Amino acid sequence: MQVFNTVADVRNQIKEWRKQGLTVGLVPTMGYLHEGHQSLMAQAKQQNDKVIVSVFVNPIQFGPNEDLANYPRDLDRDILACQNMGVDMIFCPPASEMYDPHFSSFVDVIGITEQLCGKRRPGHFKGVCTVVTKLFNITQPDRAYFGQKDAQQLAVIKQMVNDLNIPIVIVGCPIIREADGLAKSSRNSYLSTQERNAALCLYQAITLAKSLLQQGERQSDKLINAMKTVIEQQPLARIDYIEITDFNTLKSVKHIEQSVLIALAVFIGNTRLIDNFVFTLPE
Amino acid sequence: MQVFNTVADVRNQIKEWRKQGLTVGLVPTMGYLHEGHQSLMAQAKQQNDKVIVSVFVNPIQFGPNEDLANYPRDLDRDILACQNMGVDMIFCPPASEMYDPHFSSFVDVIGITEQLCGKRRPGHFKGVCTVVTKLFNITQPDRAYFGQKDAQQLAVIKQMVNDLNIPIVIVGCPIIREADGLAKSSRNSYLSTQERNAALCLYQAITLAKSLLQQGERQSDKLINAMKTVIEQQPLARIDYIEITDFNTLKSVKHIEQSVLIALAVFIGNTRLIDNFVFTLPE
Repeated sequence: MQVFNTVADVRNQIKEWRKQGLTVGLVPTMGYLHEGHQSLMAQAKQQNDKVIVSVFVNPIQFGPNEDLANYPRDLDRDILACQNMGVDMIFCPPASEMYDPHFSSFVDVIGITEQLCGKRRPGHFKGVCTVVTKLFNITQPDRAYFGQKDAQQLAVIKQMVNDLNIPIVIVGCPIIREADGLAKSSRNSYLSTQERNAALCLYQAITLAKSLLQQGERQSDKLINAMKTVIEQQPLARIDYIEITDFNTLKSVKHIEQSVLIALAVFIGNTRLIDNFVFTLPE
Repeated sequence: MQVFNTVADVRNQIKEWRKQGLTVGLVPTMGYLHEGHQSLMAQAKQQNDKVIVSVFVNPIQFGPNEDLANYPRDLDRDILACQNMGVDMIFCPPASEMYDPHFSSFVDVIGITEQLCGKRRPGHFKGVCTVVTKLFNITQPDRAYFGQKDAQQLAVIKQMVNDLNIPIVIVGCPIIREADGLAKSSRNSYLSTQERNAALCLYQAITLAKSLLQQGERQSDKLINAMKTVIEQQPLARIDYIEITDFNTLKSVKHIEQSVLIALAVFIGNTRLIDNFVFTLPE
């Protein structure tokens, strides 16, 4: 496995692969890899001759009061994890390789980015779209892999790829959970033992909503209120949002008549966690 | 020569060319082709195995009070011109092929777009960057060709390509002029005979500034005032701007100590014309 820090090194290697007619899959990450990322790598391995994992904590997608400085990093462990997964190349550039002092170009998606997390994190998805565009242009993969856990990110990237005619297939991969149901996330490492227990309330709320939907409940406010009640029982939890939205536009839906995304963001202590599921009406 | 209206057709053909190891040059245009465009095509022919010309009047780069509806169009003549130049493919999509009703992704460059034309045409360069990104992704050329007449556009595209790691070489080509000095432009077709005569004042102002620079003048305000005087002698002319800026950042320069862009925009009747030249200090 190769570990590259520069765009030039990455491009040289990919040129070689392309000459040999090999296909390339990209798994963009911010590192501190967990089983969620590994499932993306496994999927990429299955569908491509070569797999690249990028490890880059992208400064421009963090707001001024967010956790950029504290975001967990462990490149040595990440390299090991990628090696174990049979990854072919890690691209882990320093910030200066990605953003020179005169950097001033941005990619943004309007509308869909103004809902859910976008409402709470202005500029976040602009930062995401910009860095993903750069990573796409640097690696020019056939396919790129994103987790459904970041449901809005996945929807935004799909919209961007479609709008800008980016010649890359975007593959969304299911949420990977701990044994007790907590969605895997690098940010779980922030949680104390007590907070880790409290964090389960996101999954409990999701489980309740799923069962109410199965019983035929279609009113968004009733579902949201039931989820709220579960989370408000947890003294360490503070709801950022719980929303039921159209699966494609991410606009709020009052009565469920089509595929919807049911998404929530909850602070556990100082750690903001997200989770979601997609509900498709039975035929 | 092939004439394609759809992204799919373009991609199929380019895939074939790529399989054969051929290089591709792109000349993005809004059609109504003139000798300026032809010089771009000639340059592209020299440097690439295959040349694509896109003909697309991009609605999102026109402001609400600009000339989108009246912008001159003549596809039959454009096809002939391309054929004569030995172009291999024209891509002339309808607007619906480029922008679906849910289109919502944009590429923008900050800073450099806020000077000169960008100050007068808010959103213009965002529209340009977005369509150029789309055309780049659709055709994936090795090189793309832009005229120095649209000096700010060329600088913005170069900045975007550098910032977003777009793997395409941007080639800037010199301004092509009529025998009397008027810079070739599709918008010249708007001019009445009287206006056509008046339009020469842009080149006259440029010629005067060049000779003053040669005589050693380095004060921007003196040069600008001299240029103003030339243009104000023309009753049909109304100055939009005359500016002397740093060649790279496009920020105003008071005293010329480095390479500068000397650029002007002038209304002749209702037609807005631009012209410019680059001055490099003698060694």
